[in-house]
Amino acid sequence: VVTVFEQLKAEGYLEGRRGAGTFVSERIPDDLQPRIEIKTTASIAARSVTPFAARPPRAFRVNEPALDHFPMDLWARIGSRRLHRASRLLLASGDPQGYRPLREAIAAHVATSRGVRCEADQVVVLSGTQQALDLLARIVLKPGDAVWMENPGYPGAFEAFRKAGARLVPVSVDGRGLNPADGARRDSRARLIYTTPAHQFPLGMALPLDRRLELLDSARRMKALVIEDDYDSEFRYRGRPLPALQGLDSGDTVVFLGSFNKALFPSLRIGYAVLPPNLVESFVELRFHVDRYTPQLDQAILCDFITEGHFTRHLRRMRALYESRLCALTEAAKRRLDGVISIPDIAAGLQTTAIFSKRTDTARVERASSILGLETLGLHRFCLERIGTSGLMLGFAAIDEAEIRRGVNALAQVFETLDRRRPT
Amino acid sequence: VVTVFEQLKAEGYLEGRRGAGTFVSERIPDDLQPRIEIKTTASIAARSVTPFAARPPRAFRVNEPALDHFPMDLWARIGSRRLHRASRLLLASGDPQGYRPLREAIAAHVATSRGVRCEADQVVVLSGTQQALDLLARIVLKPGDAVWMENPGYPGAFEAFRKAGARLVPVSVDGRGLNPADGARRDSRARLIYTTPAHQFPLGMALPLDRRLELLDSARRMKALVIEDDYDSEFRYRGRPLPALQGLDSGDTVVFLGSFNKALFPSLRIGYAVLPPNLVESFVELRFHVDRYTPQLDQAILCDFITEGHFTRHLRRMRALYESRLCALTEAAKRRLDGVISIPDIAAGLQTTAIFSKRTDTARVERASSILGLETLGLHRFCLERIGTSGLMLGFAAIDEAEIRRGVNALAQVFETLDRRRPT
Repeated sequence: VVTVFEQLKAEGYLEGRRGAGTFVSERIPDDLQPRIEIKTTASIAARSVTPFAARPPRAFRVNEPALDHFPMDLWARIGSRRLHRASRLLLASGDPQGYRPLREAIAAHVATSRGVRCEADQVVVLSGTQQALDLLARIVLKPGDAVWMENPGYPGAFEAFRKAGARLVPVSVDGRGLNPADGARRDSRARLIYTTPAHQFPLGMALPLDRRLELLDSARRMKALVIEDDYDSEFRYRGRPLPALQGLDSGDTVVFLGSFNKALFPSLRIGYAVLPPNLVESFVELRFHVDRYTPQLDQAILCDFITEGHFTRHLRRMRALYESRLCALTEAAKRRLDGVISIPDIAAGLQTTAIFSKRTDTARVERASSILGLETLGLHRFCLERIGTSGLMLGFAAIDEAEIRRGVNALAQVFETLDRRRPT
Repeated sequence: VVTVFEQLKAEGYLEGRRGAGTFVSERIPDDLQPRIEIKTTASIAARSVTPFAARPPRAFRVNEPALDHFPMDLWARIGSRRLHRASRLLLASGDPQGYRPLREAIAAHVATSRGVRCEADQVVVLSGTQQALDLLARIVLKPGDAVWMENPGYPGAFEAFRKAGARLVPVSVDGRGLNPADGARRDSRARLIYTTPAHQFPLGMALPLDRRLELLDSARRMKALVIEDDYDSEFRYRGRPLPALQGLDSGDTVVFLGSFNKALFPSLRIGYAVLPPNLVESFVELRFHVDRYTPQLDQAILCDFITEGHFTRHLRRMRALYESRLCALTEAAKRRLDGVISIPDIAAGLQTTAIFSKRTDTARVERASSILGLETLGLHRFCLERIGTSGLMLGFAAIDEAEIRRGVNALAQVFETLDRRRPT
């Protein structure tokens, strides 16, 4: 009970007031349903998104946490202690499945915070989600196999499955996330389903329980494997998080993927897969042939960081920070961009979508933004097939409130300029 | 000139005597030709070699350096300094090609010590040789493509090319290494040639200059790419090292692979490829889709370790240590195993072969050795096709001289027992 209370506190659902007790946080709404309507139409190419972040972040960089708030001194202290006391074992060849104490810490973390049901023997430590996708594609897919993909969806997954020769089946994402009925209409013999149920990439909504059950049911009927990419589930600013799809399954249908690269820092390069027991052996064997194992000293440092409670504390602090940044973005957008874009009411993640009120040439918006020193990405970059709305992804986690306001002002300027130039 | 002198000193070819000057080391022979004759016959399967080294090393563990002699305090001090001063840039998403200062340090190192001709723009930082092989196989090979493989050879390469659907062509290794004429007889349309010219894996000889030129010539004629795995070239205890095959080539034929995982410690997981300029883009693109990039803090620590001169000093110390361990092994074997096994006169590497004088069931030797607490690997594990000799690989780098002598005594006991049981 204490663990559950601590976890709920850590995640911001409960608040402890000194000398008074524990209270349910004031900002928990009953309904998390997002309100965007997305329809699929003709096909446009999904371009890859460059992640090379050599420059300091500007509005509205996506996929980057607030690195200047990362407790580097603490990490360095733990790292230094681990390096100075490193045993021969930590320097020698490691377990391709991952450093055992880290696998145990991960299994405990995902059980408590995500409702994942697993043993440490099902956990494989990897360099991140991308490596998991590449390895799973190579194990599961044969050329020509169909894969259900969320549309819009995650280009890293498109690439991984395309490299394995798969046929990507775009499945529409409506206001309630991935629609399994649309998937069944388009291809009822998929071998794999890729989904981001905690926080749809890029639209942000959580997949409701009935859709989750429907998705698992479709998967079992097709004998498809479901890859649950638990993307950004750590960052939810109000509402109850739904436990993982993996925890709803009887055992063999779902692979659960998580990563520390955005919750801590991108260049860490540690993520993990929680596999059905029957997949572990072939997955670890391929991993060994592909790149052996994850650097062990890094795994040991991360393990200490988690087991000493720093990971949970860091997430809690980042949640508060990102929530206030999202709030700054929403308010500035309401003031300066009302009637031009709308930001869905999804209090989660490191970024949000901004949906254009009028049909707009997204590539022109991107170009004009770039001239004003903005980093923007059009939603069209995440589409396998054209969707009924256009808009941008706006990252808010990596930049402070002043930069957020500058960015919104610049974006307003972009739309004013484009509007003036519009011939009709 | 000073650099070259320093390098030759670092590699043990010159000796500095305080107050007296620099002298050529006393133990440089004119001829490095090894004396083993290997002939290929019927085919036997190459089994994979498990690298999981959780237990302390025993005689005769292969592929493990002397971890108790690694300057961990120094590494920890450098690591701690890097972590405490880590910039935002080091925490953010990195360059899939590798941390630029490390690529420059590697380019300088391979130019000076290995005669490799390259710019930092041709260097890609990876987790090790295995990742390079997997990526190259995926870029270069189509199912059914022929690959020349040294026989006996490196099972990690067999696996990487098999996973890409390649047809492995065993090319015989005689007393002078890989024989290109045998390759041409077996398949004159190979797409790829894999070779370990500095120190043939597992037999240990260096490929002489005429064979190197012949090999490059064959590759150009077939329009094949050559993968030069510069395996264990750092550890040569006498004789001149031949410069890399890559440096003999005009530009587009050779990929040069190196690794820090055995020169420093296995769980570091940093190696590199030096690519022909025309391969860099597609290689880095695939690498990005497969696992993004190598952890940046680790790259920065390694970079400091190299540029501050510690890497060269560590190699020099390890060379002296391993040479004395090899010497202990050779002498003990002469005393206790004369007429039973012979150890070729190759003063290099972390391990040596021990060739059986009489035809012996290698699997029985492995089993009996294991009962006596030895770790031995039969040469048959490295064969694509049966070869004319049988023997073991004996690692000597990871264990001290007492353990080497215990191991030789135990091995003598193994052969005495097997001899007594022999029915004929």
